[in-house]
Amino acid sequence: MYNPQLNAQGELIHLLTTEGLPKRILTQILDQAAEYVENGELLNNKWQDLAGTSVFNLFFENSTRTRTTFELAAKRLSGDVSSLNIQASSTAKGETLLDTIHNLEAMGANLFVVRHSESGAAHLIAKHVKKGIAVVNAGDGRHAHPTQAMLDMFTIRHFKGDFTKLRVAIVGDVLHSRVARSQIHALSTLGCPEIRVIAPKTLLPTGIEQLGVHVYHDMAEGLKDVDVIAMLRLQNERMAGAFLPSTQEFFKYYGLTPEKLALAKPDAIVMHPGPMNRGVEIDSAVADGPQAVILPQVTFGIAVRMAVLAIVARNQKANK
Amino acid sequence: MYNPQLNAQGELIHLLTTEGLPKRILTQILDQAAEYVENGELLNNKWQDLAGTSVFNLFFENSTRTRTTFELAAKRLSGDVSSLNIQASSTAKGETLLDTIHNLEAMGANLFVVRHSESGAAHLIAKHVKKGIAVVNAGDGRHAHPTQAMLDMFTIRHFKGDFTKLRVAIVGDVLHSRVARSQIHALSTLGCPEIRVIAPKTLLPTGIEQLGVHVYHDMAEGLKDVDVIAMLRLQNERMAGAFLPSTQEFFKYYGLTPEKLALAKPDAIVMHPGPMNRGVEIDSAVADGPQAVILPQVTFGIAVRMAVLAIVARNQKANK
Amino acid sequence: MYNPQLNAQGELIHLLTTEGLPKRILTQILDQAAEYVENGELLNNKWQDLAGTSVFNLFFENSTRTRTTFELAAKRLSGDVSSLNIQASSTAKGETLLDTIHNLEAMGANLFVVRHSESGAAHLIAKHVKKGIAVVNAGDGRHAHPTQAMLDMFTIRHFKGDFTKLRVAIVGDVLHSRVARSQIHALSTLGCPEIRVIAPKTLLPTGIEQLGVHVYHDMAEGLKDVDVIAMLRLQNERMAGAFLPSTQEFFKYYGLTPEKLALAKPDAIVMHPGPMNRGVEIDSAVADGPQAVILPQVTFGIAVRMAVLAIVARNQKANK
Repeated sequence: MYNPQLNAQGELIHLLTTEGLPKRILTQILDQAAEYVENGELLNNKWQDLAGTSVFNLFFENSTRTRTTFELAAKRLSGDVSSLNIQASSTAKGETLLDTIHNLEAMGANLFVVRHSESGAAHLIAKHVKKGIAVVNAGDGRHAHPTQAMLDMFTIRHFKGDFTKLRVAIVGDVLHSRVARSQIHALSTLGCPEIRVIAPKTLLPTGIEQLGVHVYHDMAEGLKDVDVIAMLRLQNERMAGAFLPSTQEFFKYYGLTPEKLALAKPDAIVMHPGPMNRGVEIDSAVADGPQAVILPQVTFGIAVRMAVLAIVARNQKANK
Repeated sequence: MYNPQLNAQGELIHLLTTEGLPKRILTQILDQAAEYVENGELLNNKWQDLAGTSVFNLFFENSTRTRTTFELAAKRLSGDVSSLNIQASSTAKGETLLDTIHNLEAMGANLFVVRHSESGAAHLIAKHVKKGIAVVNAGDGRHAHPTQAMLDMFTIRHFKGDFTKLRVAIVGDVLHSRVARSQIHALSTLGCPEIRVIAPKTLLPTGIEQLGVHVYHDMAEGLKDVDVIAMLRLQNERMAGAFLPSTQEFFKYYGLTPEKLALAKPDAIVMHPGPMNRGVEIDSAVADGPQAVILPQVTFGIAVRMAVLAIVARNQKANK
Repeated sequence: MYNPQLNAQGELIHLLTTEGLPKRILTQILDQAAEYVENGELLNNKWQDLAGTSVFNLFFENSTRTRTTFELAAKRLSGDVSSLNIQASSTAKGETLLDTIHNLEAMGANLFVVRHSESGAAHLIAKHVKKGIAVVNAGDGRHAHPTQAMLDMFTIRHFKGDFTKLRVAIVGDVLHSRVARSQIHALSTLGCPEIRVIAPKTLLPTGIEQLGVHVYHDMAEGLKDVDVIAMLRLQNERMAGAFLPSTQEFFKYYGLTPEKLALAKPDAIVMHPGPMNRGVEIDSAVADGPQAVILPQVTFGIAVRMAVLAIVARNQKANK
């Protein structure tokens, strides 16, 4: 099957989604990130992978945090970085979006990092860029957030080693979460035998079972004996309708407290993509507790984004 | 006659307008830009022309596109670039503007790139900066946009060679266009024998004929046998009154369609300063057609801005 | 007494306030800044003091001017700089602020420059950062603005030499001014024998005399025979209530005019932290006159900020 993320040799030239990527590509990203983490001071060394490469961060949707991590990742690899916050005005429709892209290509862009509120934006751009130019999806609508999912995979592998013996629970607002989708695809491909999602019915997309996950509506059942708990952020800003009675109610049933955490394996790790809503989806005692790996996730996030940028830039260069 | 853009030796020390600049200066800019274009990979090489030079982009009027091209141009020449978006608040009057400038001088600025909604802002700044500091106008009110005009000249010379045998038509909202004014002055100086402007009466400034242009209100007549068509952007945001019945009406009479384009010479080129209003001043079939040189304009724009920055910085340095 | 700004060896590891800093530390900052000023072209040389150091400018309160000077200072020392404008939303409370800080630490931050509208924000952050990470206060609420005070000290020493024989008058809105507080502490420590504050009663904090200053409500008396006049900015944006009848009234009584300036010593210098409200707290004839040292202050401000960044980074590195 044709995969727009791979070239004829099966190498990664865009990262748009974890869906449909073969295991060897996911492993390549994790291995390359591990090299950055292991080789001395990850964050204070300068690599040359992106020397002479012009990286454009196109943020059609604001995200200081994700934009900053991509900027740091690109600079750490000696790339030339320009960040543009582009207002998603009513006129910024498909055609105009492509005009913007073609203009930036004409200015010498080699790599686009794209954040957009509409699902499919990064795919659209990847379809229309010139040969030799890479696109990395930094989150598109409810669709995908592949670098977030890959940093979660890195974190799991770092703390748990092998995916093939793990029970992983993804907890919270699955319906609005591009992170959850990308996690499920990556976990499946990497061989995780049991993926659970725990959420109220109103925050689950229909047909989620078809992705091979086990659905739970009760935390006590869902967390039992899991090795990894991946909390999701409650996307208040995306909830137009009345999906929830209240955030207090949500916390009561789905917030991760020490009591609920005690149901998981004693050495279970707790992940969260940030920024956290303390007291809504996670209790501070858990967020700051010994099982939380939330801050290591941030550090690994830089390494994983470095790996993704370096790999797609290298493969595009070789094929130009 | 005294020209604030030239020093006593007749060298360019500020670029404020194409008006009154001698042909040798315009040609120097084009020739230097050509060197950047021709010497290998324009956009992925690092020149040293601005090493140790502190460039401040002062954007009192927002323009992501122009700001980005100046940033790229300065970085490509190894300059240190700071970009400031300064809100044109009601207090940002003459005196305060100069306080801002003097403060930035005291911080070590060597070169100001200025975009301002008021005509004459760049001239005012150039008049008051310390000896040795250069000012480049990146668009002031309805007055001038010299680097845009010079990249258009570069594009024309690149595709057509000699200016002395060309018929050039400038089409659209001439009244609100600083680009049109700057183009007309540059074309005249470079020896273009026939410059036409095509626009409805409501979008033409009075006395435009005094610039030596031929005025047309009808596209069929105006486009006949021209070598170059320079479309203007319909500046919706600048049209306070009712200059136009509607944009549909405008497109019908003045939008560049394949049918109207067929009236020009078969090898005529079509330019547009961007961003395009597709279906308003230009039809997509033309914008994406074989005669459009709109994306090369963007690439040449980086080279021309590099040339301007390098030239004024060099001449200011020599005279300090 | 424990001082969170010093390590066990008594070296500066954070700069939060000039209050309680020993004279040798203030002198170290001034001496190091003097080295940058004296060694060739301050603003166009590249030092290596911050090579490999990741500096984050966290501006929870907008200040283009201060942010730009810190960016320039860090770049001049070869630091890697990221600037974040963080909206002080209602949710950006204590806990969330620290989550932000811990996230940036996990991204590899070595040094935070913090501007915040709440007094004590920089202290709070310094208390919670990991060992080895420095915090520099770029202004917190009404509390302190130590780098501004230190550049004023540098300016005084540059023009007047010895602090121990000077009469210094601080004039204007002392109540809302973090600058005034920081100046008073620094001047006292550096041995200035007579510090005066001149302000209407409504713009003076209660108990100001306890800082060892002499209070005047009349300019004629207060300015008599002073060596240094430190004007304060009228913080219009901070005056919620009716502290002033009008700015015209303020100018009449407290605005620095040539007539009032004539009461000071003939060689008195006039300082202002900028941006100036001309015609409110200072007359243009004074602002642009021969006794004003307002633009040298800006240049020295870069050098002083360079010195502070270099010193805290060096001391943190040694103690890691």
